[in-house]
Amino acid sequence: MTPEAIRQILEAVRQGKQDTDAAMEQLKDLPFSEMGFAKIDNHRQLRTGYPEVVFCAGKTLDQSEQIIRLMYAKNNNILATRASEELYLRIKALFPEAEYHAAARAVVIRRQAIPQAKSYISIVTAGTADIPVAEEAAVTAELFGNRVERIFDVGVAGIHRLYSRLELIRGGRVIIAVAGMEGALPGVIGGLVDKPVIAVPTSVGYGANFSGLSALLTMLNSCAAGISVVNIDNGFGAGYMASLINRTE
Amino acid sequence: MTPEAIRQILEAVRQGKQDTDAAMEQLKDLPFSEMGFAKIDNHRQLRTGYPEVVFCAGKTLDQSEQIIRLMYAKNNNILATRASEELYLRIKALFPEAEYHAAARAVVIRRQAIPQAKSYISIVTAGTADIPVAEEAAVTAELFGNRVERIFDVGVAGIHRLYSRLELIRGGRVIIAVAGMEGALPGVIGGLVDKPVIAVPTSVGYGANFSGLSALLTMLNSCAAGISVVNIDNGFGAGYMASLINRTE
Amino acid sequence: MTPEAIRQILEAVRQGKQDTDAAMEQLKDLPFSEMGFAKIDNHRQLRTGYPEVVFCAGKTLDQSEQIIRLMYAKNNNILATRASEELYLRIKALFPEAEYHAAARAVVIRRQAIPQAKSYISIVTAGTADIPVAEEAAVTAELFGNRVERIFDVGVAGIHRLYSRLELIRGGRVIIAVAGMEGALPGVIGGLVDKPVIAVPTSVGYGANFSGLSALLTMLNSCAAGISVVNIDNGFGAGYMASLINRTE
Amino acid sequence: MTPEAIRQILEAVRQGKQDTDAAMEQLKDLPFSEMGFAKIDNHRQLRTGYPEVVFCAGKTLDQSEQIIRLMYAKNNNILATRASEELYLRIKALFPEAEYHAAARAVVIRRQAIPQAKSYISIVTAGTADIPVAEEAAVTAELFGNRVERIFDVGVAGIHRLYSRLELIRGGRVIIAVAGMEGALPGVIGGLVDKPVIAVPTSVGYGANFSGLSALLTMLNSCAAGISVVNIDNGFGAGYMASLINRTE
Amino acid sequence: MTPEAIRQILEAVRQGKQDTDAAMEQLKDLPFSEMGFAKIDNHRQLRTGYPEVVFCAGKTLDQSEQIIRLMYAKNNNILATRASEELYLRIKALFPEAEYHAAARAVVIRRQAIPQAKSYISIVTAGTADIPVAEEAAVTAELFGNRVERIFDVGVAGIHRLYSRLELIRGGRVIIAVAGMEGALPGVIGGLVDKPVIAVPTSVGYGANFSGLSALLTMLNSCAAGISVVNIDNGFGAGYMASLINRTE
Amino acid sequence: MTPEAIRQILEAVRQGKQDTDAAMEQLKDLPFSEMGFAKIDNHRQLRTGYPEVVFCAGKTLDQSEQIIRLMYAKNNNILATRASEELYLRIKALFPEAEYHAAARAVVIRRQAIPQAKSYISIVTAGTADIPVAEEAAVTAELFGNRVERIFDVGVAGIHRLYSRLELIRGGRVIIAVAGMEGALPGVIGGLVDKPVIAVPTSVGYGANFSGLSALLTMLNSCAAGISVVNIDNGFGAGYMASLINRTE
Amino acid sequence: MTPEAIRQILEAVRQGKQDTDAAMEQLKDLPFSEMGFAKIDNHRQLRTGYPEVVFCAGKTLDQSEQIIRLMYAKNNNILATRASEELYLRIKALFPEAEYHAAARAVVIRRQAIPQAKSYISIVTAGTADIPVAEEAAVTAELFGNRVERIFDVGVAGIHRLYSRLELIRGGRVIIAVAGMEGALPGVIGGLVDKPVIAVPTSVGYGANFSGLSALLTMLNSCAAGISVVNIDNGFGAGYMASLINRTE
Amino acid sequence: MTPEAIRQILEAVRQGKQDTDAAMEQLKDLPFSEMGFAKIDNHRQLRTGYPEVVFCAGKTLDQSEQIIRLMYAKNNNILATRASEELYLRIKALFPEAEYHAAARAVVIRRQAIPQAKSYISIVTAGTADIPVAEEAAVTAELFGNRVERIFDVGVAGIHRLYSRLELIRGGRVIIAVAGMEGALPGVIGGLVDKPVIAVPTSVGYGANFSGLSALLTMLNSCAAGISVVNIDNGFGAGYMASLINRTE
Repeated sequence: MTPEAIRQILEAVRQGKQDTDAAMEQLKDLPFSEMGFAKIDNHRQLRTGYPEVVFCAGKTLDQSEQIIRLMYAKNNNILATRASEELYLRIKALFPEAEYHAAARAVVIRRQAIPQAKSYISIVTAGTADIPVAEEAAVTAELFGNRVERIFDVGVAGIHRLYSRLELIRGGRVIIAVAGMEGALPGVIGGLVDKPVIAVPTSVGYGANFSGLSALLTMLNSCAAGISVVNIDNGFGAGYMASLINRTE
Repeated sequence: MTPEAIRQILEAVRQGKQDTDAAMEQLKDLPFSEMGFAKIDNHRQLRTGYPEVVFCAGKTLDQSEQIIRLMYAKNNNILATRASEELYLRIKALFPEAEYHAAARAVVIRRQAIPQAKSYISIVTAGTADIPVAEEAAVTAELFGNRVERIFDVGVAGIHRLYSRLELIRGGRVIIAVAGMEGALPGVIGGLVDKPVIAVPTSVGYGANFSGLSALLTMLNSCAAGISVVNIDNGFGAGYMASLINRTE
Repeated sequence: MTPEAIRQILEAVRQGKQDTDAAMEQLKDLPFSEMGFAKIDNHRQLRTGYPEVVFCAGKTLDQSEQIIRLMYAKNNNILATRASEELYLRIKALFPEAEYHAAARAVVIRRQAIPQAKSYISIVTAGTADIPVAEEAAVTAELFGNRVERIFDVGVAGIHRLYSRLELIRGGRVIIAVAGMEGALPGVIGGLVDKPVIAVPTSVGYGANFSGLSALLTMLNSCAAGISVVNIDNGFGAGYMASLINRTE
Repeated sequence: MTPEAIRQILEAVRQGKQDTDAAMEQLKDLPFSEMGFAKIDNHRQLRTGYPEVVFCAGKTLDQSEQIIRLMYAKNNNILATRASEELYLRIKALFPEAEYHAAARAVVIRRQAIPQAKSYISIVTAGTADIPVAEEAAVTAELFGNRVERIFDVGVAGIHRLYSRLELIRGGRVIIAVAGMEGALPGVIGGLVDKPVIAVPTSVGYGANFSGLSALLTMLNSCAAGISVVNIDNGFGAGYMASLINRTE
Repeated sequence: MTPEAIRQILEAVRQGKQDTDAAMEQLKDLPFSEMGFAKIDNHRQLRTGYPEVVFCAGKTLDQSEQIIRLMYAKNNNILATRASEELYLRIKALFPEAEYHAAARAVVIRRQAIPQAKSYISIVTAGTADIPVAEEAAVTAELFGNRVERIFDVGVAGIHRLYSRLELIRGGRVIIAVAGMEGALPGVIGGLVDKPVIAVPTSVGYGANFSGLSALLTMLNSCAAGISVVNIDNGFGAGYMASLINRTE
Repeated sequence: MTPEAIRQILEAVRQGKQDTDAAMEQLKDLPFSEMGFAKIDNHRQLRTGYPEVVFCAGKTLDQSEQIIRLMYAKNNNILATRASEELYLRIKALFPEAEYHAAARAVVIRRQAIPQAKSYISIVTAGTADIPVAEEAAVTAELFGNRVERIFDVGVAGIHRLYSRLELIRGGRVIIAVAGMEGALPGVIGGLVDKPVIAVPTSVGYGANFSGLSALLTMLNSCAAGISVVNIDNGFGAGYMASLINRTE
Repeated sequence: MTPEAIRQILEAVRQGKQDTDAAMEQLKDLPFSEMGFAKIDNHRQLRTGYPEVVFCAGKTLDQSEQIIRLMYAKNNNILATRASEELYLRIKALFPEAEYHAAARAVVIRRQAIPQAKSYISIVTAGTADIPVAEEAAVTAELFGNRVERIFDVGVAGIHRLYSRLELIRGGRVIIAVAGMEGALPGVIGGLVDKPVIAVPTSVGYGANFSGLSALLTMLNSCAAGISVVNIDNGFGAGYMASLINRTE
Repeated sequence: MTPEAIRQILEAVRQGKQDTDAAMEQLKDLPFSEMGFAKIDNHRQLRTGYPEVVFCAGKTLDQSEQIIRLMYAKNNNILATRASEELYLRIKALFPEAEYHAAARAVVIRRQAIPQAKSYISIVTAGTADIPVAEEAAVTAELFGNRVERIFDVGVAGIHRLYSRLELIRGGRVIIAVAGMEGALPGVIGGLVDKPVIAVPTSVGYGANFSGLSALLTMLNSCAAGISVVNIDNGFGAGYMASLINRTE
């Protein structure tokens, strides 16, 4: 709510065009609008097709279902992450258009057309076992209106695989690089391209990888510039961050 | 080097327009060009005014000076980070146009005009003690051609300070949020804006902050989406990442 | 037992009003009373309705049942935390008035009226998944004679939810703030209210949250004053601490 | 700002008693007042004598001095923590009434009478080396209007020292227990009293104490209920938390 | 094997009383005897009744059974630690005199009388959940010829329980103190007695106890002297160490 | 591809002996050959009998099977590590010559003769529970053409067992030393031999071994020279490293 | 104080043999005597020659001096650990009989004859740099009435040095084994002797020794039985523990 | 000493060719020779020119000097690592042929010709700041008789620098790869060569590199095979390990 809007309400009151109660009702939401909380939400609703998101881990099946029902009632696209197949079957029974991305463990319900960004996002993995995290990022990015190029299993232990796909990787407006174990892939890519790289450590590995800590530290300490890092296994976070970067303003 | 370029060289050889040695000379760099290593370098040189960067920590004064001399000879802009005042005085004696950004511990030499991005970068700190890291980010971003808005000391312990500057923060194409101690600032900002947020943990604090680990973990675990993290105290990394995001393509 | 009390016993013995054995019986507990060990226990018994507590984790069903039987025989209210439903069914079969608070995993047996404090305790959670820990705190606080206001799912990623409930939160004599993942909620509340805040980190999250370590460190490093922290997932501890603070002296 | 206050402004506008601009001026601060940010500040100003606090660590002497000058101009009491003697001498030169609490590393300026709480705060240390942290807590608590009882060097390795002072410790409305090394003191006290205990781990010790981590973990894992913990060496935080608990409502 | 013994063998050879092969056979073990490796083993065999020990964790049932069969053939007493009930049933079928100490998860086979030390070992636990570790220590100590006094559930949260048993605890030649969670018990005992205390941290607890790390650090950092620590949950190690200390020389 | 090779292609083009397309086809792989990526692969194919390796952990049964099918089609020897028995049965059904090394959890398919190195590799374990990791190393080394001597269960707690086998251990060109718990074995061996020692920490142990971290740190900090370390439980890595060292050049 | 003693006092009061005040005086100390706090102190004073100990780290020179003066007044032997040479010079000026053990950083004042134990304590170090910690243990043990045998620089990297001194090591009633870096020495000794071994990790080393953590973990995880561990660099603790074990009862 | 050698001694005694005392003298050293302790030492002395090594860190100047004097008296080559310039000047004054390798912080005294291995060792660093560690490795390897090729500053952030030197790197019999910060270099090299790679993490970096821990974990978790790791900053260890591998048998 801009200062002009506030002034108009006050003028309307002064001129008797609006009574006190109605004005109060409008001003009641003032702090939120002024601070932009609702703005974000409205913003998202206005960009038709942008999804609402529910993070299902740590929620009961009932809780997740209930939230999805509420979202569905608002006619929005919906993205449910960390969703079990069991949850999917429940949702499918309710809303037959629900899709399940098994590798990404994501349920998607598309109810509106999604406006598309012009540039694409490259999503790269070091190994086969990193694919589920990459798929979570990909499904997220796609539902937020981005084209995604998947380049999987090009880790630095056989770096020629990476080079053979380098043009495609470099073509993206932003690159998501997913790696477990040593986690060196984002740093190597960061040295080869001049696009922002979002690094996603995965918990893939064993022994002194300490559930992804090794990859996380590698990525944070990368000598190459142009890299920032999200939480271990956080495909959704990477996909969303990349969407914000790729957004055509 | 595109496949077309390779074909042209080969055709020139076949047609006798180019001799074997000259062709070999061109192809000698093939792996690099094909893979884009040199392309990056050329790229940077072609965008006149983009700086070359030297990270001075862990280098002797002599090593740093020698590298800066080499860079200077190429007529480039230069950014030396983690530079002591002692190094600055040496460089100043050689190149009087050198400037010292004391808070950022950065030496800057501007020899060429820097092309400017249209949108700006917001740089926010939680506290006063986080300013040096923020300044390193700001100097970096400015030298890479970005306008920067500094919004300092708006940490979540007195969150109304943050709200009073929210419009300015939100106006940036990308936001750098710098915080030590609990490190909650980026997450709160991430919930209030829909721009990408680059979180920079600092080593500011004491006790169980473990030299920045506390802030780092907070940022990685942020519930708000649209946040990614660079290394502790890595102002340069944040400034460079933001520059890549803010770049007008 | 005050020095006066000891003197009275001795005088009674000297005057032959009390025989040696009875005096010994009284003095047998002396070290405890003098040091206050027994005083605490008596204290609790005297404030009719205050519960006895058993922590069931790490105890066998038989051990827990046996302890609860003993407590029941003393006619006290009983709180069994970390109690499985299996234990509850056993206890229910013995004492039909037993209630099970499933979310809190607590068995409660009310045998006496509980004196009520005048002010209430606010219990706030950042997310849905933090509710079990908050419920353990709530059930504890209620059984110790406090009114509780529950304000759930108001985490900082959508901070407007927090503001809309701020008056209710602030109205408590003491606030329990429960959060996993980044754990920023207590610090934000601490900056908005001037009541003591007891922060409870939860193990909710994934990746670099390291089973609650991330939230724990955030809370310990909070820039806002007026916050202290209990162990990860320790809802009981928070509820008990809040009860001590809210106690009407 | 209560809903009634908003209504009154609107009514005044409607009745022509107040013009639009004046009303806007009042409403301009609405978000802050409505959310209570300014309320806290006003609140503190209204309780005459409550100090303003500056945390000097990580600030330059100039920055600290400048902040203290600003506070002084508002005629408030002032508490500067983690203040070096050098800072004190600067402040002393400006404001001769400044006092230095060397053990606590605190500068105090008293300009107004401080209203006193009725009950006192017990501050206990395990060893001699924990005293500076305890003194920071004590100076803080005193400046916030509390009487403090100091009971130092009563650690569990010679537990009879603790018992001989137990009545005094137990007499406080709230107890601050400060300990390094093994950090067992708060847990033992927690088992002997039924008052809230604020545990402060210190970095005192060597070897596997890991700069206070050992004491911190001990306190978080205490079997005794009624204990919560602040950051390592955070005497100010403990003193402030205790003040909030001891406040007479 | 002493130098004298070597000389005797050589003399016997020189005098023709012993042939070369027999001498070689004796000397073949020389390095071992000279260094005392075999001495230990012989030593143990000579003190009739001392058990042989097998640590069953990480061994298959077959491996454990095979080792126990070999030991049995030598007519020794046997102690199998970390033994499942399944293993016990197998062993019981072979050797009906096998006993199972379920709490200690130990299989014991007594085939010879065990010589008894004169003084006893006190084994103390902080809580009920620490009893399995304490029982492993107790079974070990008993099989090595020690009388054991068990004093369980006397943790510092209710320290009067500890005092009521203090004479019994102090009467031992050496004290084993077992505690999880905060792990403060050994330090408190160490301040009350002047006997060596072997501290055993257990993995009992939750949250920031980090599987026993909290108790381990507490014990290592104990302010009281006369305490040393074994690995987390290592009841056998404590029992064996105590046996060595209690051995009548 | 050597510069000479490039020159020859160019000459052939110039002389019209080769057309442009064929030359391009050859040069298309240039970066790889020039950089040796493909060289490694060819290299391995040329040394007939060298296996291709698939790491099965984190791959689905289908993924592993598909990769093995592809490898099989190239007629190579195959080593599948971290392979479940379930995978083995699948592979066995396809390729009856597949063998399962259960202790090592490895599937091996031998389709070509393996050239043998002249010297052997000693593989030593501290305990029985370390054998699976040692077997993974042994199977790997054998399939890469090395004779292996297994010396198991010779840990430092009974160091005479180690001495009795020392000549055999020392006879190897390189020694793999596998140990969990305290992990001291490699350091002791390193002090007794002058051959390179590859240390493999295992996750065997409990309590403060922290899943192998204890053994890992011990090995990294060994005072003896001539020791380097691979990841926890990484038998394959040790076997492969040893193969490279033992290779007859 | 036994129940009989309490009864006797009461009987004396009843029979008028003792008046109330005298009885109260006796009972006033009851808790302490009953619990043995004072007993320990008396105990120590009664064994003439046993030293009083002051830990100087974290104390000011003035504090340490003041404590030593108090001790001196009681005519006791005194041991000041972690004492700087500066402190020594102060004490020397006051009490010329003060000695300084520079390697151990200990000040010793002998004022009474020290009763000697019959058996000796072996103190072993792995390297030269571990000697200061070993000397602190040795000085402590000697002042508590033990003969000490020093066997230094016999680490496992050159294990034959250890064997050549094994008889001397084994001859002690108890062995203190001091080691940094990998910390394997106590485990190897534990496998060679059947005496209790007190392991002292030191902070000697670099890199992944993490200030002694590596050695600490090694010792806690030792496969050999009969080992317990004190804090990193805690020579005093080891010396005192060994004294308790070596005490002739 | 082989069994045959023992038999011969015994036969000589039996036949009276050797008396008992002489035989005893020979057998006295048996354990050492049999076990090879002395053999190593002899071995080294026999290979004329192999150096003796002293690790100077944690030793006083006097201790280091004394050890070097002793070594010098045996006419051996000497390598003193972690040697300060101050120590060098002392040694230089005694033995003018002493050389100081300042970058490596090593003092070298060559008194005998060093036999040379046929193949060379490649030593590679990621950055400039890693050079001191690499030089320690290089000086070590050279003094043990190896030719060294230094390839410095070829880290993965500018990977084309690595490729331009790949043939030289690959030509070594063994490769030492030194890297701090993210530590990815050894893994990338491991994927490009089929020679054993010894990875050396350095403490170079800042923030979440945790004094080299980041690089250490990266290297341990490398996906490429053929890599093993030494301690952080342990250039000597890497140089010695590489010497053992490069030794011509």
